Amino acid sequence: MENHLLTMTELTNHEIEIILADAQHFIDGGTWTPANKTFVANLFFENSTRTKCSFEVAERRLGLDIIPFEVSTSSVSKGESLYDTVKTLEAIGVNAVVIRHQEDRYFDQLTGKTDVAILNGGDGCGHHPTQSLLDLLTIKQEFGGFAGLKVAIIGDIRHSRVARSNAESLTRLGAEVVFSGPEFWFDEEMMKECSYENIDEAIATADVVMLLRIQHERHADQSGMTAEDYHHAYGLTLEREKRMKKGSIIMHPAPVNRDVEIADSLVECERSRIFKQMKNGVYIRMAVLKRSIENGKGSANYVNSNQTCTVAN
Amino acid sequence: MENHLLTMTELTNHEIEIILADAQHFIDGGTWTPANKTFVANLFFENSTRTKCSFEVAERRLGLDIIPFEVSTSSVSKGESLYDTVKTLEAIGVNAVVIRHQEDRYFDQLTGKTDVAILNGGDGCGHHPTQSLLDLLTIKQEFGGFAGLKVAIIGDIRHSRVARSNAESLTRLGAEVVFSGPEFWFDEEMMKECSYENIDEAIATADVVMLLRIQHERHADQSGMTAEDYHHAYGLTLEREKRMKKGSIIMHPAPVNRDVEIADSLVECERSRIFKQMKNGVYIRMAVLKRSIENGKGSANYVNSNQTCTVAN
Amino acid sequence: MENHLLTMTELTNHEIEIILADAQHFIDGGTWTPANKTFVANLFFENSTRTKCSFEVAERRLGLDIIPFEVSTSSVSKGESLYDTVKTLEAIGVNAVVIRHQEDRYFDQLTGKTDVAILNGGDGCGHHPTQSLLDLLTIKQEFGGFAGLKVAIIGDIRHSRVARSNAESLTRLGAEVVFSGPEFWFDEEMMKECSYENIDEAIATADVVMLLRIQHERHADQSGMTAEDYHHAYGLTLEREKRMKKGSIIMHPAPVNRDVEIADSLVECERSRIFKQMKNGVYIRMAVLKRSIENGKGSANYVNSNQTCTVAN
Repeated sequence: MENHLLTMTELTNHEIEIILADAQHFIDGGTWTPANKTFVANLFFENSTRTKCSFEVAERRLGLDIIPFEVSTSSVSKGESLYDTVKTLEAIGVNAVVIRHQEDRYFDQLTGKTDVAILNGGDGCGHHPTQSLLDLLTIKQEFGGFAGLKVAIIGDIRHSRVARSNAESLTRLGAEVVFSGPEFWFDEEMMKECSYENIDEAIATADVVMLLRIQHERHADQSGMTAEDYHHAYGLTLEREKRMKKGSIIMHPAPVNRDVEIADSLVECERSRIFKQMKNGVYIRMAVLKRSIENGKGSANYVNSNQTCTVAN
Repeated sequence: MENHLLTMTELTNHEIEIILADAQHFIDGGTWTPANKTFVANLFFENSTRTKCSFEVAERRLGLDIIPFEVSTSSVSKGESLYDTVKTLEAIGVNAVVIRHQEDRYFDQLTGKTDVAILNGGDGCGHHPTQSLLDLLTIKQEFGGFAGLKVAIIGDIRHSRVARSNAESLTRLGAEVVFSGPEFWFDEEMMKECSYENIDEAIATADVVMLLRIQHERHADQSGMTAEDYHHAYGLTLEREKRMKKGSIIMHPAPVNRDVEIADSLVECERSRIFKQMKNGVYIRMAVLKRSIENGKGSANYVNSNQTCTVAN
Repeated sequence: MENHLLTMTELTNHEIEIILADAQHFIDGGTWTPANKTFVANLFFENSTRTKCSFEVAERRLGLDIIPFEVSTSSVSKGESLYDTVKTLEAIGVNAVVIRHQEDRYFDQLTGKTDVAILNGGDGCGHHPTQSLLDLLTIKQEFGGFAGLKVAIIGDIRHSRVARSNAESLTRLGAEVVFSGPEFWFDEEMMKECSYENIDEAIATADVVMLLRIQHERHADQSGMTAEDYHHAYGLTLEREKRMKKGSIIMHPAPVNRDVEIADSLVECERSRIFKQMKNGVYIRMAVLKRSIENGKGSANYVNSNQTCTVAN
C-alpha cells in the first residue's frame, strides 16, 4: 500500500473512487481519527491560502498534531536541502508532510528514502493531486459520475498543474475533455493528447467549463495582451455564460483574476461551483491524509484493509 | 443580533456592559466553550505582538481551533483581495476572523457578504474596539464605574485608533474626557468633540492619565522634536507623576516608547496599569469571541438569549 | 528551585543526571502533563528547523498550549525590546518561553525580572544547553556513562555554541575531551582549557568524534579555504572514518554541510548518531520543559520534590 500521494497518474480508478467516497463520507458527517498521536508538518515553499489553510482545517478535523514550519525562518535559509529537512522532521517524530515546492517532481529525491508520508501540495508546473481530486468530487456531486460528460479546460494549459492531470484522469474515468484558450500556451504534445476547440464552441457545448488561472507569478507575460483583451478573447464573459448549456457548471481552481478569466459577477453566480470546490477541498484532504496515515510504513496506524470511517452521531 | 465587532460606536452602553461583565466573569474563573467545533483565523496585515498573541491565548482558552494565516505567505501576495481571502476561509469552514488591516474601515467591503464573524483588531487610523473595551474594563475595575471620572487622553490623538472612540464611549458612559499633548496633532473637529487642556493641568487633575504611543511607523515625524524634547514637553516625566491626583492611574496601550511618552521607571510603577491592561485584554477578547460565536448566523452555536457563562469549579 | 534553563554551567552533575533520566523515561514511554493549562511561546530571533520544531513536538507531547510568535510580524519590528516582549507575554498568561537570540547572554536582562520560565534555545556564540544535553544523552545511551571516554570535538570551536559547554560538562562528568580542527579558529584561552590534537590522531583514538558545523552564516570566511580544502584537511573523510576506533561513534549538531565537515555518505552510516541526536532532542526538551514548569514561580504546577513522571501503559 502506498503511503505517499504524489501524482494522479499513480492512482488507479479504483483508488480515486475510494478517495472520493471517503471524502463524501466525511461531508455526510463521517469521522475518523488515527489510533495514535500523529504529527504532520505543512512545508509550503510557495505562497498559498487555499491549499495550506484547507490542509490545516482537514488536519485539525482528523485530530492530528501540526508542527508549524515556515520556510523563511527554517534552516532552509542556511542552505539545508529538502532531503535533510524531511529527514530531520522524520527524526523528531513527524509522520506525514504536505509539500508545495517550485521544483517539478521534487518528491523523486525523497521517496524510498523516508518513512514519512509525502502528500504533494503542488510541484512546479507538474502536479497538484488534491486539486484534481476535489475537481473530480465537485463534478461527481453534480452529475453522479463522469461517463459521457464533456469537460472544457480553458486557459493557460501549459503552466497549469492540474490541466493535464485532470484531462488524463477525466478521460480514463469516461469523460470527453477538450482544451481551449490562447494557442500560444499550447504545444504539439498537448494537441496529441486532447482535442482543441474554439472558445465559443467549447463554452456552449461543455457540461463543465473549467477555467484556469493566468499565473502572472509563474511566467513572464508572453501574450502581450491586456487583461481586457484576454477577457474578451478567452474569458468567460457575461455573453458567453448566456450561451452555456442548460445544467452546465463553472469551475476555477482560484485565486480568480476577476474580469480576466471570468467576469466579476459570475464568480458567485448560480452556475459557479468555485466556492464549492474550496469546500470540497477540505474533505478530499481529510480523505488523502487518512489514506496516508493508514498506509504509513511501520506505523501503528497501519491497517491491512482500507478501513472505512464511521458516521458520527 | 450582530455577530461582528467593528467599532465602539455600534455598541450600545448595554452591550458594552455585558462584554465587560463577561470578561470579569472569565477573570473570576468563569468558562465557556462553543457547542460545536469552531474555527478561527487571525489575519494581521500589520505587525502586532499584544493584540495577536492576546487573541491567540483567548481563542485557546475558549477551546477554538485556530487556522494559522500569514499574510506574507498567503495568496494575498499573488494579489488576492481581502474579500476573496475571507470568502475562501468561509468556504473551508472558518467561522470567525480577527482582522488588523492598514485600511480605514476595511470591513465595509465584507459585512453583509459573508457569514464569517469579523472581529476588528484595528483598522488604519480608525478603530480598535478590543483595545477600547480593555481600557474600559481596567478603569471600571479601579473605580467601579465611569460617572464623574476625569480621563485625560494625551499624545498623538490624530493617528490613534483608540483616542476618539475611547473619548466617545467614556463620555456616553458618564466620564469627562480631555485631550492633551502637541497641538500639531489636533484638528478642529476634535476640538469640537472634546476640550483641550494644558499637559500639566491635565495630569494633575485626571483620575486616569491615558498616554498614547508616538507611532513612528504610522506617519513621518511632523514635529521636528527629538524624543527628549517630546518627553520634556508632553511626556509623563518623573516630576509630573509626583503631581498626579491621589488614587489616579496611568494607562498606555503599548508598546511603550520608554522615556518618550513616559519615563522608563514609571512603566512598572505603582500607579501604572499598563501590564494590567494587557492582562485584561485576554479576557475582553474571550468575551467578544463568545459574543460573535453565539450570535453567528446559521451557526449551531447561535443562541437567542445572551447566555451567561458558567463559573468553573 | 530554578525554573530557567540558561547554560550548562549552572546545572550540577546531579541536575544533569535527572534531566537525562527524565528524557530516557519519556523515550521508554513515560508521560507527564502539567496539572494546569500551561502556555508557552517559542521566540526564535534566528532561523532554525531542528531546535524549533523539536521544541514544538516536545510541547505538544506534554499537552502544552503554544502561542505562535514570529519575530518579523511582531512588535519587535516596531522597536519593542526583548524585555518588553517577554513582559507582555507574561501579562497575557504565557508561563514559559523558549528563546533563540543572536545576542550573547540575552537572558541576563530578563532573569529576576519575570516569572516566565526562560529556556535558552541558543544565545549568540554562547550557549545551547538543550543541544549539550541531547549530546550527553546520546553518548550515555551508547556507552552507559562518561567516565574514561575520549571525546574529540572538531571544527569551528570559536563560534560554536556547544563546543566549550560540552567540553566543560563532559570533563566534570569524567570524560577526556580534546579539540581538533583548524588552528585559526582557536584562541589561547581555549588551549588552556583543553588539549589540542592533530586531526588524524584525534579521529583514530576517540570514542566520540563530534564534528561542528562551519557556520557560514555566523562569520565571514576567515580561512580562505574552499569547501574541498577544508574537507581534505579537517573533515571526516571516507579514509579517516576507516581508521576510527572500534565501537566509536560520529556526532554532529546539524544542519550538516555534506562533503565539508563530513563525507556525504557517512551522514547516515552505521557509526553515525546524527539522526539519533535529533530524535533524542525531543525527549530532552520534554524533560527540561517539565523541570521549568514544575519549578515555576507561583505556579500551581510548582512541586517541592522533583516529581518523577509516570510510565504510560
